[in-house]
Amino acid sequence: MAQVTVWRRLRFNAAHRVHNPALSEAENKRLFGKCNNPNWHGHNYELEVAVKGEIDPVIGYVIDLSTIKEIVEREVIDQVDHMNVNLDVPWLSGVNPTTENLVVRFWERIAPAIAPAQLVTLRLRETENNYVEYSGE
Amino acid sequence: MAQVTVWRRLRFNAAHRVHNPALSEAENKRLFGKCNNPNWHGHNYELEVAVKGEIDPVIGYVIDLSTIKEIVEREVIDQVDHMNVNLDVPWLSGVNPTTENLVVRFWERIAPAIAPAQLVTLRLRETENNYVEYSGE
Amino acid sequence: MAQVTVWRRLRFNAAHRVHNPALSEAENKRLFGKCNNPNWHGHNYELEVAVKGEIDPVIGYVIDLSTIKEIVEREVIDQVDHMNVNLDVPWLSGVNPTTENLVVRFWERIAPAIAPAQLVTLRLRETENNYVEYSGE
Amino acid sequence: MAQVTVWRRLRFNAAHRVHNPALSEAENKRLFGKCNNPNWHGHNYELEVAVKGEIDPVIGYVIDLSTIKEIVEREVIDQVDHMNVNLDVPWLSGVNPTTENLVVRFWERIAPAIAPAQLVTLRLRETENNYVEYSGE
Amino acid sequence: MAQVTVWRRLRFNAAHRVHNPALSEAENKRLFGKCNNPNWHGHNYELEVAVKGEIDPVIGYVIDLSTIKEIVEREVIDQVDHMNVNLDVPWLSGVNPTTENLVVRFWERIAPAIAPAQLVTLRLRETENNYVEYSGE
Amino acid sequence: MAQVTVWRRLRFNAAHRVHNPALSEAENKRLFGKCNNPNWHGHNYELEVAVKGEIDPVIGYVIDLSTIKEIVEREVIDQVDHMNVNLDVPWLSGVNPTTENLVVRFWERIAPAIAPAQLVTLRLRETENNYVEYSGE
Repeated sequence: MAQVTVWRRLRFNAAHRVHNPALSEAENKRLFGKCNNPNWHGHNYELEVAVKGEIDPVIGYVIDLSTIKEIVEREVIDQVDHMNVNLDVPWLSGVNPTTENLVVRFWERIAPAIAPAQLVTLRLRETENNYVEYSGE
Repeated sequence: MAQVTVWRRLRFNAAHRVHNPALSEAENKRLFGKCNNPNWHGHNYELEVAVKGEIDPVIGYVIDLSTIKEIVEREVIDQVDHMNVNLDVPWLSGVNPTTENLVVRFWERIAPAIAPAQLVTLRLRETENNYVEYSGE
Repeated sequence: MAQVTVWRRLRFNAAHRVHNPALSEAENKRLFGKCNNPNWHGHNYELEVAVKGEIDPVIGYVIDLSTIKEIVEREVIDQVDHMNVNLDVPWLSGVNPTTENLVVRFWERIAPAIAPAQLVTLRLRETENNYVEYSGE
Repeated sequence: MAQVTVWRRLRFNAAHRVHNPALSEAENKRLFGKCNNPNWHGHNYELEVAVKGEIDPVIGYVIDLSTIKEIVEREVIDQVDHMNVNLDVPWLSGVNPTTENLVVRFWERIAPAIAPAQLVTLRLRETENNYVEYSGE
Repeated sequence: MAQVTVWRRLRFNAAHRVHNPALSEAENKRLFGKCNNPNWHGHNYELEVAVKGEIDPVIGYVIDLSTIKEIVEREVIDQVDHMNVNLDVPWLSGVNPTTENLVVRFWERIAPAIAPAQLVTLRLRETENNYVEYSGE
Repeated sequence: MAQVTVWRRLRFNAAHRVHNPALSEAENKRLFGKCNNPNWHGHNYELEVAVKGEIDPVIGYVIDLSTIKEIVEREVIDQVDHMNVNLDVPWLSGVNPTTENLVVRFWERIAPAIAPAQLVTLRLRETENNYVEYSGE
């Protein structure tokens, strides 16, 4: 059977501060510049979720897109949307919320929740000029 | 010689109904919801075609983009554009036209027509929030 | 008080056939070409709704965007999304569903429903290359 | 001489909280929902600036785009980018930072700074689904 | 009858040099910087054409989009696409090809060719960050 | 440690002529059509740069995006932006500037300059309908 990858985009708006609490304020300022503003800044994030598998011959889908949507909203979007990802999300507590760190934490929640369907890539876009991709390696 | 992948986007507008004729109307309605509307709905589809190969040292192309365009228009776009993909396309007869099923059928027509150039990926976008990718596996 | 215009985008996917029932099939075919396919085709439509007014000093909004969303979904989107606009929508019955005719019929439903807020423009996009604007004139 | 309108887009990323300090916390929560999160959320804002005038016959511009850029960066972008617009910007102190209120305050700074060139419209986009326009009325 | 505005986008790729031949090389360099490179640079231009009028009750269009396309291609696109607009276009001879000057020259060709339909706005986009609009004033 | 891929987009505007100097003018005209215009044409190019690696536990980045930006601007963007890539760039001298050939030459400069960080893909977009990808194979 053909193996197809299905991509679904979801969006959220959040505040964050790039900050490593193990370092001094001065060191944080030096490393992260304006992204370290103690009063936060924020982004319109886009999260793209890729699930790969055989096409189910009965429904013609690899996975119903509404299933992806429900799982990703429950596990990630509803918990980070209109939130401060440094302060408001228990499972991000103590995490320096760079796009890299966020995408790995999102993977840890989405991959098991979507199984046995196979999550193959997460793409997290922070601005029109930058995004990260993670495939669980 | 360097191996480069060339992507060309083409577009078409079509009507469809997500429907498995082997199932009852009630079961189709339950599985596919509003996508099963018996009077059809439709989309602006985007098809992205990736061909990979060595750069030809004479022309500096992997493949002339106009060659991709002509083949994909002849094999797919001209046959589905402004059509009902459930009713109007002989080679889609009996196919439940999910994005997954469409992309595999498109591959079966484009891959041999474009050979010996190597089709490596098809990406078929149905809305701004979802698309599928197929690499012939 | 400052007069500001607020724009909200909504989307729907629909099937249609450009067809004037007062004309012969041959004349329709001549006038509308592939857009006249009797088996329909379809689009991802984008509707942008502009409301103009003073900023309410208590809430800081001209109008809550969720109010626009609820009214436009109830009056238009929920009735045309995943529908055939020639067949499934009573208030479009007998209308040749060109983008121009659709935008005027949408105005006739949204403008009174959103009053006393002032609808100033509707923009209806059919493809990435064409859209229409209507301001009630 | 021909009158042409020149548009320049600039971007900034900021945190905010939609909140009217004259109202109770409960009332703010009721009016603004998740946009009232006391720990802030944020956006990738896009500001489009329109200047209208005659084409200068020597330079062929209405106004050099780098002049627009320098003025808008100095007056607005550099002061709000990677900032919390509720806390970090003196000239927004006490303002409920809805998109409507922001665009008017931006106008008050840009219009005199860009004179004698004529600012005719500001467009401020908060998400891909909503933006506001202000023309100084 | 309702007055609707129809917009059609067309694209072209061209080389140009921002240069006023009445000025010295040094003055051109000072005024236009890198845009004055004597060996040219180039852009993917987007031209959006707006025609306003009553909806024709027989066809349901203000104007057939294919009519706009044919006229604008004949009058402008086919003459500037893959061209050097300083060197290759007789009706741009001696014009300093700023976006402002181009849009006015395009208007002078499209407006009479599209009459009696009423051209109301041309929008010419040079990059994702800047465009100009002209309405014949 | 998690392996994440970071993408950064940069843009430049350039003139070019698709032309193989080893062939006759007639043969060039036949092979490359309007892209062979001797007076040049041009594009708004987008270059996307992907770097893959472990997340640095101190900074939470694979690589600071400003490091990518500085290196790619120094090695490529500043040398091709607002330039004629056939005439103005010593390290492109004699290269037929197809998108394929450009992306390979860009790789040869960026990959060593960004080491020990690992450049994994370059994507070079010429128009909204076509782009190429190169991964150093």
